[in-house]
Amino acid sequence: MKAKPIILKLGGSVITYKDKPSTPNNEAINQLAYEISKANVMPLVIVHGGGSFGHSFAEKYGINEGFKESSQMIGFSKTHQAMAILNKMVIEALINHNIPAVEVQPSSFVVTKSGRIKKMDTRVIEKLLETGFVPVLYGDAVLDSDKGFAILSGDQLISSLATQLSAKRIVVGVDVDGLHTSDPKKDKLSAKLIQHVTLKELKKMQPKISEATVTDVTGGMLGKINELIPAVEAGINVFIVNALTQDNVYKALKGQKVVGTIIE
Amino acid sequence: MKAKPIILKLGGSVITYKDKPSTPNNEAINQLAYEISKANVMPLVIVHGGGSFGHSFAEKYGINEGFKESSQMIGFSKTHQAMAILNKMVIEALINHNIPAVEVQPSSFVVTKSGRIKKMDTRVIEKLLETGFVPVLYGDAVLDSDKGFAILSGDQLISSLATQLSAKRIVVGVDVDGLHTSDPKKDKLSAKLIQHVTLKELKKMQPKISEATVTDVTGGMLGKINELIPAVEAGINVFIVNALTQDNVYKALKGQKVVGTIIE
Repeated sequence: MKAKPIILKLGGSVITYKDKPSTPNNEAINQLAYEISKANVMPLVIVHGGGSFGHSFAEKYGINEGFKESSQMIGFSKTHQAMAILNKMVIEALINHNIPAVEVQPSSFVVTKSGRIKKMDTRVIEKLLETGFVPVLYGDAVLDSDKGFAILSGDQLISSLATQLSAKRIVVGVDVDGLHTSDPKKDKLSAKLIQHVTLKELKKMQPKISEATVTDVTGGMLGKINELIPAVEAGINVFIVNALTQDNVYKALKGQKVVGTIIE
Repeated sequence: MKAKPIILKLGGSVITYKDKPSTPNNEAINQLAYEISKANVMPLVIVHGGGSFGHSFAEKYGINEGFKESSQMIGFSKTHQAMAILNKMVIEALINHNIPAVEVQPSSFVVTKSGRIKKMDTRVIEKLLETGFVPVLYGDAVLDSDKGFAILSGDQLISSLATQLSAKRIVVGVDVDGLHTSDPKKDKLSAKLIQHVTLKELKKMQPKISEATVTDVTGGMLGKINELIPAVEAGINVFIVNALTQDNVYKALKGQKVVGTIIE
């Protein structure tokens, strides 16, 4: 039997400064590369978000709304380019820590349908893993069979990859300690960390979000977690940890106890 | 009927300084982006070489000899990373000239067999072209089903793309005027430009290369052209021009007369 991979997500808010356009958090990127190298768990797939690199272009040109006018095309180019540049920075740090990391560009082989992955061709990723490489994917601007183009989020990617590759577990590194009862960045005193949540409990939490439609009381975390439900349903555990706290990602990769949210 | 694309190759010796490690020729890259923008021919696929970016790592780690020892793995990572960084520079220049250029990473969807492309999945490239984008591919370190990994040259890529996409013509931009009777860089006085060559004549020229095995009397040009034979056999004309001579690429894209070699 093939070894089951761990899927590690590095949030855009961790590896970039979200409020400064196209500004990487080099210190965090290097620290994470160090922790990944120290953990030395294989097979491993890394997926990173866009943070202030992809989001600003995607938003400016309305990429996720689909193809409406030709002026958006250069925006699609710029969005992918920004994501690819951020990916180069992440890969550079991983290589510097002697990790045989290899970019896998989502937009070169994934076409979504109304923004959703139908089925991903994971043959190259599987072959990279078998050879001993660490594939590194990222949220990307992709072609879409219904609306021309769309944004494929890193969260949708990890869920799809985890399911198709029968992942051992998913580790999601974010800039807060996990899922809270409200937004921990706004309600510093009242927001309580939910350390453990089952699929059943998670599904019960959904209506609260639907009522709010745009604003997610948890500060966006529940929206991210929603993407992971298919993976949890497939029996894959999800660990959400604060990747900016030293050694959290190292410990989570090793399967050690970390303050955070476990979904199982 | 779908419009037939032009395939433009930008040689590594054009867009980089071949004798300086990882040094782009920014002036040439910008001039070429300007000429491509001015020509405004669509549909268009661009493929670029590695020059001093990919070659040094590929050679150092023996990537094209296949997987022999685990120490090569980081070399595979570095080779792709170098190629992807060069690609970012080419795309940046194209975007600056308002060309909706989009990277298509060969190693993310092509697996060779003993260094050769069997069949490429060109669906994403075709969809990019239909939408009006300019896909930009490059020579890359790829996985190989027989030898673990291999180098997929830009020349093999353009031949394969041209055949599968039924290209209108192939324009190959190099740092000499075309195919010569001997190496124009070494034999400045005696090397004569072959302005026109048929497939039949080209095939007759082959034995001379086989005898020499390692050294190609034409300075490597015949080796490059060999890769293009399948495309020429499919009825696709090839124009080899000096891309460092101003307006050559512009004219060749437009189908205007340029000093160079025509293979038909």
